[in-house]
Amino acid sequence: MEVVSENPKAPIKIKWLNSSSSVSWLEQAISHPFEILIDHANCERKAAGVAIQMMFRYLCEPGLAEVLSPLAREELEHFERVLKILESRGRYLEPLQAPPYGSLLAKSIRKEEPLRMLDSFLVAGLIEARSHERMALLSLHSPDEELRDLYADLLHSEGRHFSIYLTLAEERFDKPVILMRLKQLAEVEAKILSKLHPEPRMHS
Amino acid sequence: MEVVSENPKAPIKIKWLNSSSSVSWLEQAISHPFEILIDHANCERKAAGVAIQMMFRYLCEPGLAEVLSPLAREELEHFERVLKILESRGRYLEPLQAPPYGSLLAKSIRKEEPLRMLDSFLVAGLIEARSHERMALLSLHSPDEELRDLYADLLHSEGRHFSIYLTLAEERFDKPVILMRLKQLAEVEAKILSKLHPEPRMHS
Repeated sequence: MEVVSENPKAPIKIKWLNSSSSVSWLEQAISHPFEILIDHANCERKAAGVAIQMMFRYLCEPGLAEVLSPLAREELEHFERVLKILESRGRYLEPLQAPPYGSLLAKSIRKEEPLRMLDSFLVAGLIEARSHERMALLSLHSPDEELRDLYADLLHSEGRHFSIYLTLAEERFDKPVILMRLKQLAEVEAKILSKLHPEPRMHS
Repeated sequence: MEVVSENPKAPIKIKWLNSSSSVSWLEQAISHPFEILIDHANCERKAAGVAIQMMFRYLCEPGLAEVLSPLAREELEHFERVLKILESRGRYLEPLQAPPYGSLLAKSIRKEEPLRMLDSFLVAGLIEARSHERMALLSLHSPDEELRDLYADLLHSEGRHFSIYLTLAEERFDKPVILMRLKQLAEVEAKILSKLHPEPRMHS
């Protein structure tokens, strides 16, 4: 586990995220590769669900379905890829209890439109940005070559998905409004992760 | 519109469906290409939503997500393709009121498991089979070459999707049970369509 101890020297900095993931998260994740894989599969499936849910909520919003539909397809592709690795290792999907991350973040989404739309884009984007950061860590530090390759392949999509959500916001809202709200939500996001969840999860 | 009048001589027979679509449906559909395109886009999006919903309801059911995830991706691809055609013709998605077809069929899905699962597969399959039949009609009789090509390309997927849902049922339920229920549901499906819905829809 020497690689892990190198992490504090070079934490991965992702623009917009308010914190870098802790060494304790990385150690927890690396020590529980199956739980992380199963949780990762669940996350990809959920991310597809979120994109499709937005496509239904904003049924005829110009320029939205055109980008969220391919994004949802990509999340499903990733889901299938993780599922294949799980199956090749004799494991399968499991109904792992989700960490509080997603539900706490969702609480920050304001209820009235168009603020709800803005917040939905930014929360979805921040989750992608965090996944990007954590997959980057795993791609560097996982002791398992196949998993390093998996995360190295997928992390760029997560970063691209953040940009897609940010662009969706920029097309509809004023930049200062977006940046102020993104900063607030990034603080909430970092605070949720500041205490390591006891169960190993992609967002523990 | 001569081609339409030829239809009664050669209605398209789809195994499992209890009726062939009427000439009046075909005439209605051909006379309202935009409404059918918009409704078709909505149907593809809904079909993806249904597949993903099942992936969430039966979260860890072995062999289910492996086939429903690619199926959902394909529905989304079709959605994007129809949307592109709409946009190229200066139109966009619209919140068309759905015909009673889907909601009436859904009422036939029994509430208790595992019957709910069986019925969900068969209802989803029957909708695909009907789409297959109707796209076949449009691929033959639409006066619009681009639309004929579109439907000719997509109709085979619809048929394949029916087979996927039937296989999902066959892997989990006894054949006589499936066939009896499929027959009942096909009767319900045909009855719903026996009276043409006044609004032009893929399933009017």
